[in-house]
Amino acid sequence: MTSADSDGTGLLAPGWAGSPAASATADTAYLQALLDAEAALTRAQAALGLAPAEAASRVTGAADAGRFDVRSLADRARAGGNPVIPLVADLTKAVGDEYGSYVHRGATSQDIMDTATMLVAVRTLDLLLGDLGRTERALARLAAEHRDTAMPGRTLTQHAVPTTFGLKAAGWRSLVLDARDRVTAVRDSLPAQLGGAAGTLAAFGVYGASDPTALPAAYARELGLRTPDLPWHTLRTPVADLAGCLAFAAGALGKLAVDVLTLSRTEIAEVAEGSGGGSSAMPHKANPVRSTLIAAAARRAPQLAATLYGAPAAEDERPAGAWHAEWEPLRDLLRLVGGAAHDAADLAEGLQVHPDAMREHLGLTHGLIVSERLSAELSALLGRARARELLTHLARRTCTEGRSLAELLADEPELKGVDLGDLTDPARYTGSAGALTDRALERR
Amino acid sequence: MTSADSDGTGLLAPGWAGSPAASATADTAYLQALLDAEAALTRAQAALGLAPAEAASRVTGAADAGRFDVRSLADRARAGGNPVIPLVADLTKAVGDEYGSYVHRGATSQDIMDTATMLVAVRTLDLLLGDLGRTERALARLAAEHRDTAMPGRTLTQHAVPTTFGLKAAGWRSLVLDARDRVTAVRDSLPAQLGGAAGTLAAFGVYGASDPTALPAAYARELGLRTPDLPWHTLRTPVADLAGCLAFAAGALGKLAVDVLTLSRTEIAEVAEGSGGGSSAMPHKANPVRSTLIAAAARRAPQLAATLYGAPAAEDERPAGAWHAEWEPLRDLLRLVGGAAHDAADLAEGLQVHPDAMREHLGLTHGLIVSERLSAELSALLGRARARELLTHLARRTCTEGRSLAELLADEPELKGVDLGDLTDPARYTGSAGALTDRALERR
Amino acid sequence: MTSADSDGTGLLAPGWAGSPAASATADTAYLQALLDAEAALTRAQAALGLAPAEAASRVTGAADAGRFDVRSLADRARAGGNPVIPLVADLTKAVGDEYGSYVHRGATSQDIMDTATMLVAVRTLDLLLGDLGRTERALARLAAEHRDTAMPGRTLTQHAVPTTFGLKAAGWRSLVLDARDRVTAVRDSLPAQLGGAAGTLAAFGVYGASDPTALPAAYARELGLRTPDLPWHTLRTPVADLAGCLAFAAGALGKLAVDVLTLSRTEIAEVAEGSGGGSSAMPHKANPVRSTLIAAAARRAPQLAATLYGAPAAEDERPAGAWHAEWEPLRDLLRLVGGAAHDAADLAEGLQVHPDAMREHLGLTHGLIVSERLSAELSALLGRARARELLTHLARRTCTEGRSLAELLADEPELKGVDLGDLTDPARYTGSAGALTDRALERR
Amino acid sequence: MTSADSDGTGLLAPGWAGSPAASATADTAYLQALLDAEAALTRAQAALGLAPAEAASRVTGAADAGRFDVRSLADRARAGGNPVIPLVADLTKAVGDEYGSYVHRGATSQDIMDTATMLVAVRTLDLLLGDLGRTERALARLAAEHRDTAMPGRTLTQHAVPTTFGLKAAGWRSLVLDARDRVTAVRDSLPAQLGGAAGTLAAFGVYGASDPTALPAAYARELGLRTPDLPWHTLRTPVADLAGCLAFAAGALGKLAVDVLTLSRTEIAEVAEGSGGGSSAMPHKANPVRSTLIAAAARRAPQLAATLYGAPAAEDERPAGAWHAEWEPLRDLLRLVGGAAHDAADLAEGLQVHPDAMREHLGLTHGLIVSERLSAELSALLGRARARELLTHLARRTCTEGRSLAELLADEPELKGVDLGDLTDPARYTGSAGALTDRALERR
Repeated sequence: MTSADSDGTGLLAPGWAGSPAASATADTAYLQALLDAEAALTRAQAALGLAPAEAASRVTGAADAGRFDVRSLADRARAGGNPVIPLVADLTKAVGDEYGSYVHRGATSQDIMDTATMLVAVRTLDLLLGDLGRTERALARLAAEHRDTAMPGRTLTQHAVPTTFGLKAAGWRSLVLDARDRVTAVRDSLPAQLGGAAGTLAAFGVYGASDPTALPAAYARELGLRTPDLPWHTLRTPVADLAGCLAFAAGALGKLAVDVLTLSRTEIAEVAEGSGGGSSAMPHKANPVRSTLIAAAARRAPQLAATLYGAPAAEDERPAGAWHAEWEPLRDLLRLVGGAAHDAADLAEGLQVHPDAMREHLGLTHGLIVSERLSAELSALLGRARARELLTHLARRTCTEGRSLAELLADEPELKGVDLGDLTDPARYTGSAGALTDRALERR
Repeated sequence: MTSADSDGTGLLAPGWAGSPAASATADTAYLQALLDAEAALTRAQAALGLAPAEAASRVTGAADAGRFDVRSLADRARAGGNPVIPLVADLTKAVGDEYGSYVHRGATSQDIMDTATMLVAVRTLDLLLGDLGRTERALARLAAEHRDTAMPGRTLTQHAVPTTFGLKAAGWRSLVLDARDRVTAVRDSLPAQLGGAAGTLAAFGVYGASDPTALPAAYARELGLRTPDLPWHTLRTPVADLAGCLAFAAGALGKLAVDVLTLSRTEIAEVAEGSGGGSSAMPHKANPVRSTLIAAAARRAPQLAATLYGAPAAEDERPAGAWHAEWEPLRDLLRLVGGAAHDAADLAEGLQVHPDAMREHLGLTHGLIVSERLSAELSALLGRARARELLTHLARRTCTEGRSLAELLADEPELKGVDLGDLTDPARYTGSAGALTDRALERR
Repeated sequence: MTSADSDGTGLLAPGWAGSPAASATADTAYLQALLDAEAALTRAQAALGLAPAEAASRVTGAADAGRFDVRSLADRARAGGNPVIPLVADLTKAVGDEYGSYVHRGATSQDIMDTATMLVAVRTLDLLLGDLGRTERALARLAAEHRDTAMPGRTLTQHAVPTTFGLKAAGWRSLVLDARDRVTAVRDSLPAQLGGAAGTLAAFGVYGASDPTALPAAYARELGLRTPDLPWHTLRTPVADLAGCLAFAAGALGKLAVDVLTLSRTEIAEVAEGSGGGSSAMPHKANPVRSTLIAAAARRAPQLAATLYGAPAAEDERPAGAWHAEWEPLRDLLRLVGGAAHDAADLAEGLQVHPDAMREHLGLTHGLIVSERLSAELSALLGRARARELLTHLARRTCTEGRSLAELLADEPELKGVDLGDLTDPARYTGSAGALTDRALERR
Repeated sequence: MTSADSDGTGLLAPGWAGSPAASATADTAYLQALLDAEAALTRAQAALGLAPAEAASRVTGAADAGRFDVRSLADRARAGGNPVIPLVADLTKAVGDEYGSYVHRGATSQDIMDTATMLVAVRTLDLLLGDLGRTERALARLAAEHRDTAMPGRTLTQHAVPTTFGLKAAGWRSLVLDARDRVTAVRDSLPAQLGGAAGTLAAFGVYGASDPTALPAAYARELGLRTPDLPWHTLRTPVADLAGCLAFAAGALGKLAVDVLTLSRTEIAEVAEGSGGGSSAMPHKANPVRSTLIAAAARRAPQLAATLYGAPAAEDERPAGAWHAEWEPLRDLLRLVGGAAHDAADLAEGLQVHPDAMREHLGLTHGLIVSERLSAELSALLGRARARELLTHLARRTCTEGRSLAELLADEPELKGVDLGDLTDPARYTGSAGALTDRALERR
């Protein structure tokens, strides 16, 4: 059995199965992170003269997930409630008699679990940031290309006034950049965990450290994580920060997905996914599968985040349950959002845009889509009362007679000489959409 | 590699790893359920004369999870967004040319996914009900045995008035019975799913069914599931019902766990888990691990249920995301609660009760734990105003002088002749705790 | 200031402001329920001979919300953490010296709070059931009237195969009936709460009850609530049951709303709300406001329910926080869902259906909407391989040439003599939609 | 009726009733913010020469919440689904014929609602920051004062190794500072909203703006809010950011509350709230009410945040439901957390600490609380195997014989000459608690 085979296959999770985030969060990846944390601990002690260099070297050499039986560790984790306890036993054995006592010395299970979680998080967030980058670049191209592609703006499901596809894509991109900024800030803030049994670093003093508070810094350096201000066994800021940036990223990508789903509808078809998914029953269908899976992730992420936001309110120096309730939801969030970003990058890069359909739909309301403009312009010409009366009357007639507002207005003697062509052209009522798009694209 | 090895190991999930629910919800168990659903569909068609008996037999024979590559299915599920599409291809191939066309005939992916989910749910709920049964029987024994074991009743963390451990255990049991009743009702209501592409059963008519509405009933019979009233592709009552009963069961077991955690505290120690878990750092600790893991499950279940309660509000004949968002959370709930019930049964069966500690703690407030009684009884003797004045005065003295209320009252000349021993004995102020316990234990 | 004026105005809550549920859950309604609970307690004691009849009569007479200052009570509730403590003081004063001591005698704040909550719940659920009834009757009419109105079935946003509006409406109705059944069952199960300080009924014995366990039954009778099996201060089944049935009802109504929103889109316009809402900026808009507000409720309800599903896992005989966290979310759920049902009844009764638009849309895919049928039928005529080849080829041509599948098929010499008119008519491929609708409408 | 009286009284909300946040988030405060937004819009237009100065002055003068009927507005909001529509009508009327047309000119309801929400948020966050400041200062004092007050460190409910109350208080403070930093960053980022009907600013061009993109900046300046990069009608970063910082703040305060609740237990009593709450049934009780209410807020906040994290994934230029679902939960979060911070400040300032109880509890395990140290030190003296054997043996004896580990060790001839007094004194095994506390207190 290779280690990759021992993990969840993602049979129920087409949204993350096979994605980079799936590998980075697999049980074996987590096991390797636990081992990395143990090895770094011994190396940090060696760096401060608290352990022989050879111990550090031996533990580091033994800390290879491929040598451990992840299923056995999982089963034995039930007894003590976490996988570090059996792992320490196995790793100590693997290191051997001479240096085994340097394994996990002075630490508590939570030091290793939390540190491993931060490692898994950093590694997955880096992949996520890569896919957010791909996504925003593809959206920037779409926004620039369609800077002036007019389309209906829709509010509460109804055509409102025109907008542009460029502004829409620029908006999607701005959310992706917001997500990138939040994820980056959290990624760079994630600390190593080291406190010992109750967060006082006491055991390290017994093992000879003159200043045990130097150890967390050395440990963090070994791991490429931030040095913690305090042991954070029950100061769960990093977990809540991860919850927040990931839930937001899911929502940001979800906005893109939900819009694509809407604009892909058979009746709208203003955009289409590059490669639609098939159906087991209907040969003709091309389903917007990437958007569907991203939308599904966006439905789940907030509740996973809620569980994690519940983590800080927990008792004592290590709580009985609140900590354990973090592990799976945080991993779920990481891989859900990681998978969604991977799908989003493919979606954005492959998105097909149909400006003709957009233009055609601008006429669906027989010109009422520019009624806001007409209302203002005609008020200036005819006075507010008369303008409103006229528009209300003609709006009714567009529907009953199926004629456009432009045609009906052209029949009105009061409006002789007015450039109705300009006034009623939806494509000329996109306001500052172009300027807003330009400005948004300046953001890097 | 056996198929069992290809699933999630539960390295991050000591609360369900290795439990019966873990096996019943594993990727391979889900795959088998998908295959069971496909086989039942062909058999149901054969039963109605719409397919040759040999087709049913061949499909049934081929529908063995051990023959399929779950990881490959998971990866290929990404394209169409669900695992049924690649599974139908592989199963058709496995059945062979002659009868392959009878595989999945007339169905849609969701028919198979939803039906498989119901099969997995029924199988897991049956295990859950077994463990709820073990739990309630153990709690019944505890309640009967400790019917008259007085202990402090605690409200807002403070001693209030006495209660009994029997009443406490009877309360835990009544919650477990409430959970059992809700789970049983939902378990028995879970329907098969069969509707075809958009829930009209139309394809079955094309394939020769004179009354396609007979097919769901035949299909449900093959599977031991309830016949659905309507195809429920977007009528998600069963999913919401599962969410509700499982979230409640998690909370019911959570009450037991949270009380055990409280009563196990070093300072309280009125109960202890039968076999506590060890620590990686402190040799002396016996942690309440079973309670901890149950409490962790109770923290997660409500948010998983929330995601599932969001499922019904979804568009069209099959929604783009809401359905896909159900799969993992429902499985997570099933195995979390299944694992918690397994732990709860062990916990209840092994719980150690320390009546001496309970009795000792009844004295911690120097008798103020019966102040409610004294207030009433002394009002009858001395009038309300004098009684209140006296008690307020003496209550202050108990704290400052460290003497018991009984002693101080005995010094009061007004109370000569009053049986203060009875009046101030916490064990004689347990009210109807015994009668309530008896009545609660009559429930089966 | 009348007491009604002192409540939340619902400025941020157009989904429930002004609805029947708003009145039934207002602060003053809650205050009246608290007073009803206190009065019933004294009457129950009088009924069992534990209090003079005059005391019962005086307390009942004084228990009128209009006489109390709800804002003052709210402010004074901060000190003890619940409004019952100041209310008992005010009510005792209102009853007067002679009988004041019979107010709240033997009870604890939670007895009154929980009982009042159950009263408010029953009263609001009754209103909710009325509106669910209106909704299902209107939907039944729509389903019957449109039994054979064909329309596109849509899956993953794309046209799949035809369905009928009748089946769609019947599905909506079945969800509403599911909600009705679940709400009714919970409504009829809601118990009075009576346990005294720690749930042992001890104080009632001191006040003279020979069998204090008779008191909860007498109390429940006074209130029209169910007699509890046990005091349920920390056995929160009723709260979880309310959460479940209300979250489900929100989702059931949400399905209706989300479908109406989709079908109301400018490009689809197969249905319209009877009276759309206006816009502050665009004179022509008729927004689907009722659906919008119902959909908003459906987005909020699951998370409110999650908080309530977290209530059972709470420590001791009265928890420090879990109980207090129930009050607002339960009230929010009651009025959100009550308001949504009121909107849903209006929505269903006023819904405009446009069969012409539905029929027109059946042609949008140039006939591909019946490709499932053609695939099966042509396989029977031409063999599977040839049928698939032909359909794949023609499907591509429909899109590029803009001709219908029926036209293209008519050109095929292989199909001479086949009744292509029938075979390609979407309205003749609605399967068992009619029969399923009929059967669903038999449910009462 | 004064306008203040027309709001929710908070009868069910002792956690925020009467707090500064209650006033800042009341319906009338929200109404004033809506009016402030309208007035700022007219002033911004005047500043850019798009409206007469007199219009700005008249609208500003009329924009006084006291002149409007909030209940009527709430009721009329149902028709269009938001309160801005009726408010614009009333405000236009209040401004009068001459300048009425400058009210709301070019804007959409969402511009005003979102801007008002940001104003309410900024005002409430400022109050929240004040109370977080009070809280952290009080906790800093506690940490400094109890830098060396030893107490049991508790993990999974059991005594682990000693810690100090100073480190505990420093940890609470560090969470409060984390909350302060996150709230401050979000507070300073909150943007005004201005986009017009579909976010293109189109109407402002019709009304004469040569560069409509200058208007949002002018508008933001009037309001003291940040200038938005883009109209954010469906780019809901500010809402998600608020959700995150508030949910975190609730959890941070929740940690303090949950610890105080634990340490206040009758059996532990190491701390007590300055002024405990009474009970309606038991005269002697002093309940930790402030902690209870904060803990209740911490249970609710994550699910309210989850609803808000669901907001971004919403369709179109204004979604039908997702936006409306934000309003109440965001307000609820603001006042829940605002109320909790106010309680937390009182709690921290009044907290009574009992070092004697802490010291006494360090002896509860008969010295096993220093077993980690002994295990390390005796291994150095006796070898690992012998040390473990000895400690295991003596640990068992401490329990059975009720003697302390120190006494038992003193009997061991192997340990003659070892300074067992130092080795077994829990107060001398607090590790780096003091140094960590000092360092944490350097943070400002």
